[in-house]
Amino acid sequence: MDIEAFRKAGYQAVDAICDYYTKIREMPVNSTVEPGYLVKLLPDHAPEKGEEFSVIAKDFQEQIMPGITHWQHPSFFAFFPSITNFESILADMYATSVSNPGFNWNCSPACTELEMVVMDWAAKLFGLESVFHGSSGAGGGIILGSASEACLTVAVAARERCLRILTEEAVTSKGIQGNGKTVKDLARGTGIMTGANGARVKATQVVIPEELRARCTPNMVMYGSTHTHSIGKKAAIILGLHFRALPTYRKDEYALRADTVRQALEEDTQKGLIPFMLSTFSAEFILGLPQHLSSGESPSVATIGTTNTGTIDHIAEIGAVLKDFPTTFLHIDAAWGGVCLALPELRQTLQLDAINTYAHSFSTNFHKWGLVAFDATALWVRDRELLTSALDVTPAYLRTAQGDSGSVIDYRNWQLALGRRFRSLKVWFVLRSYGVEGYQKHLRGGLEMANLLEKMIQGSPDFELLVPKSLALLVFRYHPSDRQYSQSELNDLNKQLHATLASRGDIILTQTVLPADDGEEGTFCIRFALGNARTEEQDVIHAWNLVVRLARELRK
Amino acid sequence: MDIEAFRKAGYQAVDAICDYYTKIREMPVNSTVEPGYLVKLLPDHAPEKGEEFSVIAKDFQEQIMPGITHWQHPSFFAFFPSITNFESILADMYATSVSNPGFNWNCSPACTELEMVVMDWAAKLFGLESVFHGSSGAGGGIILGSASEACLTVAVAARERCLRILTEEAVTSKGIQGNGKTVKDLARGTGIMTGANGARVKATQVVIPEELRARCTPNMVMYGSTHTHSIGKKAAIILGLHFRALPTYRKDEYALRADTVRQALEEDTQKGLIPFMLSTFSAEFILGLPQHLSSGESPSVATIGTTNTGTIDHIAEIGAVLKDFPTTFLHIDAAWGGVCLALPELRQTLQLDAINTYAHSFSTNFHKWGLVAFDATALWVRDRELLTSALDVTPAYLRTAQGDSGSVIDYRNWQLALGRRFRSLKVWFVLRSYGVEGYQKHLRGGLEMANLLEKMIQGSPDFELLVPKSLALLVFRYHPSDRQYSQSELNDLNKQLHATLASRGDIILTQTVLPADDGEEGTFCIRFALGNARTEEQDVIHAWNLVVRLARELRK
Repeated sequence: MDIEAFRKAGYQAVDAICDYYTKIREMPVNSTVEPGYLVKLLPDHAPEKGEEFSVIAKDFQEQIMPGITHWQHPSFFAFFPSITNFESILADMYATSVSNPGFNWNCSPACTELEMVVMDWAAKLFGLESVFHGSSGAGGGIILGSASEACLTVAVAARERCLRILTEEAVTSKGIQGNGKTVKDLARGTGIMTGANGARVKATQVVIPEELRARCTPNMVMYGSTHTHSIGKKAAIILGLHFRALPTYRKDEYALRADTVRQALEEDTQKGLIPFMLSTFSAEFILGLPQHLSSGESPSVATIGTTNTGTIDHIAEIGAVLKDFPTTFLHIDAAWGGVCLALPELRQTLQLDAINTYAHSFSTNFHKWGLVAFDATALWVRDRELLTSALDVTPAYLRTAQGDSGSVIDYRNWQLALGRRFRSLKVWFVLRSYGVEGYQKHLRGGLEMANLLEKMIQGSPDFELLVPKSLALLVFRYHPSDRQYSQSELNDLNKQLHATLASRGDIILTQTVLPADDGEEGTFCIRFALGNARTEEQDVIHAWNLVVRLARELRK
Repeated sequence: MDIEAFRKAGYQAVDAICDYYTKIREMPVNSTVEPGYLVKLLPDHAPEKGEEFSVIAKDFQEQIMPGITHWQHPSFFAFFPSITNFESILADMYATSVSNPGFNWNCSPACTELEMVVMDWAAKLFGLESVFHGSSGAGGGIILGSASEACLTVAVAARERCLRILTEEAVTSKGIQGNGKTVKDLARGTGIMTGANGARVKATQVVIPEELRARCTPNMVMYGSTHTHSIGKKAAIILGLHFRALPTYRKDEYALRADTVRQALEEDTQKGLIPFMLSTFSAEFILGLPQHLSSGESPSVATIGTTNTGTIDHIAEIGAVLKDFPTTFLHIDAAWGGVCLALPELRQTLQLDAINTYAHSFSTNFHKWGLVAFDATALWVRDRELLTSALDVTPAYLRTAQGDSGSVIDYRNWQLALGRRFRSLKVWFVLRSYGVEGYQKHLRGGLEMANLLEKMIQGSPDFELLVPKSLALLVFRYHPSDRQYSQSELNDLNKQLHATLASRGDIILTQTVLPADDGEEGTFCIRFALGNARTEEQDVIHAWNLVVRLARELRK
């Protein structure tokens, strides 16, 4: 494709995207294709001859679009918002036009530096204290692909941190001292203090003895709540480490409590296990791989997996407990709700002070409610050296003071992979185009619609909210007031209601089950997630009226 | 930004990209900004009020573009090509316009299915046999973000595979049999054979005893060559496992030999260590974190890291050796050169038969020489169940035959993260727009220019090729014929030559050092990587004449 062909195809793509957003309200929100629809439709090998782009663009509309679920639809209330916008599309156009592998500063200096800038902008927007700002030289922020990648990345850092602490303890307990060296010197390896070109090397990497690593690693445990997103568990599985799910209770609104944490860590420590990380949540609602998302199963016939409600763990209490278990790294995963820290009025609710006091790392997804297209997970760490010492494969004697000083960051040493996309551009475009005011207005819009829906649910005698509204998430069920219903009857009724809703194309809501504290039958209910950028008050009212009407018809 | 504002900004972005590619040949190829240029230029917090997009777009040109290194420039001969093109830009526009988190089929069916389709197209394009095709139901392909992510992903699968084999061996050696159960039944855990809804569950997950995991994991070793890209080592570090770099020699053109592999694995096995993975290369040239890429150091004053030449390991020999070490998973990382398997005339050189016979997994980057914008790493596995059993956090009793049958794939269980971008669209656009013929023509163009350069180097009495040309990569040095030069003198001369080249803005080449077999001083040399889509014969001739002229001036 030559330059003029691209100009033509590019204009057409812009027009097609404009058409899409002009019509999106009238489109069915979910795709109704059957599994395998596209595999059957497309040839089983690449074409021998090149094709005209106009044909390819036509096939995008005719073959791909029917298999797209419209997450930007005003009536998409499922899972969580996964917002894209025009700013993100423009940023991806520009970014892909100057594509490069981005593994370090020299690859393309603007890519690294813009990420440093926007991550400090966002740290300030969310109220993270200066230690988390890259400009502090202590911690800093990085944009990753997903909250799971963020969790896995900090888990590696947390494991190494734990082993370093154990190494220092072992050296201390053996009382090795002498030759004018401190205990810390001895733990810090061979003491190479000058690197290439005579540059002074920060000899911060404690050399973990292989024997200690082999002995301790199999006993290391990561903790999360039973309401935890699968990502903590998956990170532990990937690293081959234990994961312990801590129980949460309906009476606590499914938030993880400090006494639960203390009890588990004490039990495990007494058994010789070693807590190395706790991943907890600030106003997070949990995806947890609902089974109806499994391949090939239609939403309406689904079995149910883990629960998902909006819970706010008690970070300050938990953080205080962890002071007694210093090998435990505290990661706050606020993938969905964390962006609401941009609202000063919510910072107390979202426990910003506790995050600033106790968290070793904090992550939130710009790409959910945060107005930046997938993928853009923000991760901040309090101590960047925990990442680089765990992930930098550059030998210590080649690490220069300059490289560690923070004037520029080699992000490859902050992440699992080497290469990286120019994701900061979309964050920059969004934050500038919206401004702090616009960003806050967007978030408050979702909260206001959640307030409206809450009032409507509370005003409907035949419906009940099952847990208090969490930010822009509501969890409700149909509970007719005409007679007494058993839990089983209510569950059946709500399964039918959800199935009826799921069979329509004009709205999507996700089902969930709230577990009972006593091991009895859980509570089937329906989640209503607000915050999508294109959702208006009328859409919420329309959706609620629809739910009420379908529920009543069901009872007839 | 509303729809009409996007139309305007979108047209302008298309025009700006057209301008960029119209002028790219006349632009300096590398950025000359100093570290921190952008951090100083931009405000230290997000704007309070939203800004007009025209202002933001102007700032992109004025503030960001000066910090971009132009990897698409016809005279970019450094590292490796990292090609983008108009098809990729268009695909990213469309993909971002329908952005969704993509974690499984239901998220947006087209995203999963198009990936299944294009990965089978590409498997056929590259000659991978049917077991690697998704349509086989056995193996299949996935698009990941980078070769390092691919390596880490298969390393997790390889570790679990190794532990499963050890578990089965342990059960067998204990001679546990009886109750009508086979040894395999006993190793396969509690024998849950029906899952939700009565669906038959594939009970393939051997339950690895915790004790065995704790005992064996600290002894597991991953292998790569000393010429290995850092990604193998980094994957091992992330997993907390040993990495052993196997020596390669100049006499073997730095390819890893089977006898080296056998000797190392025998040594380690005798010590009680457990080989679990070998990562080797097919026509790969190695990045290896050259130190001059470290932050803040200018290319001209760089110290040198690991070597990078194009080497082709002896896969068939190595594969045969590994038959004696069945716990060892063989991963072929052909990040750069693997796309050349699209050329039938190169399949013997690139050892396709050996890959098809021995490899457990194979990966190559579309986003290097393969015409698709970063990020798009192709990974194929021979046995998908190795991935899903290692990475699926869905409990075994909920895994249904349907979910494992391959009618549609839940890609979240093939990767580390949960969410995923719609990357298959750019692969589809590229393969259709170029067709197989156009794709092959592009690759052959790079190879032909490498032939041309090889002839010019061989025809220059003052230059020498240091290793045979590898696909489109040449490694040469200046070696004047007027008198005898010592290795040190030649190294100094070539360092000066590279520094002179690096100080210019119109060309980029990467330096490297070839280690000597005997531990003596290595050979400083210059790498010339061809294959960029915009490079023409005249650019190669111009570049070579420049090298020759600068070298001669240097000697005066």
